[in-house]
Amino acid sequence: MKHHALWVSLSLLLALPLPGRAVEFTAAELARASALQKTLVTLDSHLDTPANFARADFDMMVAHPGNKLSQVDYPRMVQGALDGGFWAVYTGQGDRSARAHLEDRDAGLQRLSVIHQLLAAHPDKFEEATTPADAARIKARGKRIVYISMENASPLVHDPSLLSFYYRQGLRLMSAVHFLNSEFADSATDPKGPEWHGLSPAGKQLVQAAQRLGIVIDQSHASDEVFDQLIALSPVPILLSHSGARAVHDHPRNIDDARLKVLAAHGGVIQVNSYGSYLIGSGASAERKAAEKALFAKYGDWEHMNVADGTRIAADLKALDAKYPVKHATLDDFLAHLDHVLKLIGPEHVGIGMDWDGGGGVEGMEDVSDLPRITAWLLRKGYTKEQIAGIWGGNVLRVMQQAQDWAASQPK
Amino acid sequence: MKHHALWVSLSLLLALPLPGRAVEFTAAELARASALQKTLVTLDSHLDTPANFARADFDMMVAHPGNKLSQVDYPRMVQGALDGGFWAVYTGQGDRSARAHLEDRDAGLQRLSVIHQLLAAHPDKFEEATTPADAARIKARGKRIVYISMENASPLVHDPSLLSFYYRQGLRLMSAVHFLNSEFADSATDPKGPEWHGLSPAGKQLVQAAQRLGIVIDQSHASDEVFDQLIALSPVPILLSHSGARAVHDHPRNIDDARLKVLAAHGGVIQVNSYGSYLIGSGASAERKAAEKALFAKYGDWEHMNVADGTRIAADLKALDAKYPVKHATLDDFLAHLDHVLKLIGPEHVGIGMDWDGGGGVEGMEDVSDLPRITAWLLRKGYTKEQIAGIWGGNVLRVMQQAQDWAASQPK
Repeated sequence: MKHHALWVSLSLLLALPLPGRAVEFTAAELARASALQKTLVTLDSHLDTPANFARADFDMMVAHPGNKLSQVDYPRMVQGALDGGFWAVYTGQGDRSARAHLEDRDAGLQRLSVIHQLLAAHPDKFEEATTPADAARIKARGKRIVYISMENASPLVHDPSLLSFYYRQGLRLMSAVHFLNSEFADSATDPKGPEWHGLSPAGKQLVQAAQRLGIVIDQSHASDEVFDQLIALSPVPILLSHSGARAVHDHPRNIDDARLKVLAAHGGVIQVNSYGSYLIGSGASAERKAAEKALFAKYGDWEHMNVADGTRIAADLKALDAKYPVKHATLDDFLAHLDHVLKLIGPEHVGIGMDWDGGGGVEGMEDVSDLPRITAWLLRKGYTKEQIAGIWGGNVLRVMQQAQDWAASQPK
Repeated sequence: MKHHALWVSLSLLLALPLPGRAVEFTAAELARASALQKTLVTLDSHLDTPANFARADFDMMVAHPGNKLSQVDYPRMVQGALDGGFWAVYTGQGDRSARAHLEDRDAGLQRLSVIHQLLAAHPDKFEEATTPADAARIKARGKRIVYISMENASPLVHDPSLLSFYYRQGLRLMSAVHFLNSEFADSATDPKGPEWHGLSPAGKQLVQAAQRLGIVIDQSHASDEVFDQLIALSPVPILLSHSGARAVHDHPRNIDDARLKVLAAHGGVIQVNSYGSYLIGSGASAERKAAEKALFAKYGDWEHMNVADGTRIAADLKALDAKYPVKHATLDDFLAHLDHVLKLIGPEHVGIGMDWDGGGGVEGMEDVSDLPRITAWLLRKGYTKEQIAGIWGGNVLRVMQQAQDWAASQPK
């Protein structure tokens, strides 16, 4: 075989997807995808990036590739043609003592403050958005879009009236609960099982107060019973800001097909996530899990690690693979969830919420710089530009518009 | 007379203070004063400047001379050799309804947030300080110093436990009350007179909670009875962040000589202010007062005016002078208060808190760029460099150190 022919064969080999291999895209497909994304408003509905703002060595204007703690920064957003999204006020679930409620209250306000500090630090690069129309306006100005969301309402347990302050400060999307049951709702993943069998009375009040303000309710992390109650009580569609399909992988953080159909029938949207252990079973042994726990403990708690630790953790995890092999979720696995929900409820009810900087990212899509692969896949699957525009932001903004319109229509 | 001799005479005329004329300083005196200030940590204990941060057209990095709303910005701080001070979370006193308490709560948190946004926007120019030692360290780095204070604790009425969040966010100096009585304390100026005869029970709890955290208590704006109770209950010295001497002008916002002596005996400090109507009686007629009120109403409420309005208001006020003359406080009037307290309780118990951007400023000292005149006057009066260092910052930092040391010594 001549060298030239060999080169052509190799090029084809690299360019085309092979059976049993991860999906691959040609440079032309990726270029087309990236170009298309640049014409759309592209939003991720769950960015945990604010958790990084307080890390001493994090710089939003510098790329941090190959880092376990950071998958989003300005250079990689530009590279991946991501305009922005919902930047989360995430607060861990404390032990539900009175003291913990105060800690959670303070932590939430602190996280909210650092989002505004980012906006103040880079007024030429980022701008706060509070209405659906803001997104296109901000993009047209050449800036990235910052909607503010809340993941886990633990900062509001001590005093739910603080919701008014969060709203004034831009909060437009909120979830009630996280990994564990809270005063407001049951979690999908609390090992103790249901406590309220859905929302607590305080949780219902919180949801209704939020909806009166036009804040979209985010079901992700809540139990199925919470989902059912939200559908029953909500006058507006709800969102799953970062979830997957239970039909693809049976995990409580994913949603079953029957509920997906209910979600869509009520006008709601699921934003598909890329959190590995929700996408597939990793087959991690008890030893592997213990080794991972020890590894993270070595670097101190998640909240106070430095971004530099994220690079070390990535290397350490790779070393663990040799000793305790696990199955890592890939882009194919993410796309299997995306494909399933698209086929089941249609592209008008699907979006993107990868859980970046909160555990998201798969092999083949390690950070936001890779996002055009999603668009390339959607194009390959034959979705229209309009459908892709909906998936990348139009659908979540439609839900937001309905929430804000309904709130505006209510007597004050 | 030859031209040369005339010139010398004129120079002397301009250089020397004349009877009946405002105090004047030679260029050499001002240069020496400015040079001295640059070697000291110079702090103003009551900067209302954060009220300007939210004004759409305010830019901290641009000088706004001749502006009724703005007397502090970075260029004028450099010009006046002011290193920084205590930047106030000021909140107006609402009508004390439950709704107003929530509004005050939200307003306080919002004001706190804009201070951190300033810090985020100009990390090379401003830095937050929380301990006395921070001030010199920040100055040595060539930056301006931002301690955070609270004027009026109305943001804490709804939920005093929010104090923990303010403390975490840097609060180190706090007053309980402003123009009107509150849930916490009697004001010096409420037309209704005393309501609690000092601190309320909630006010005492708040003061004690603050002192346990090492937050200095600021008596300015509170009634004499509050002063007496603070002295009685405080294990540490207290501060008057911006007040004058009642012996010089009999106004309830000023403090009498007997209490000044008590303040000093307890290690406290009075920071002399330059709020005109506390310095002298203006002799304003009812018509003048009504005209001023109408003038401000023309520009909308204080909180939402633009800085550009501040220039127009300055011009409009000058026009009012022609129609309704009033006596304007001058630098001499300010210095009369300063002189009195210095002589009465000594330079170890006196400092500077001009109420810039909150109504401060006098003829002959319109903004922070004029501050070396104070130092020139102190030098002329024979105060030593060490005494001047105390007046410009050492005294207030000593009070802060005592408050923080005491808090650290308490069982947790």
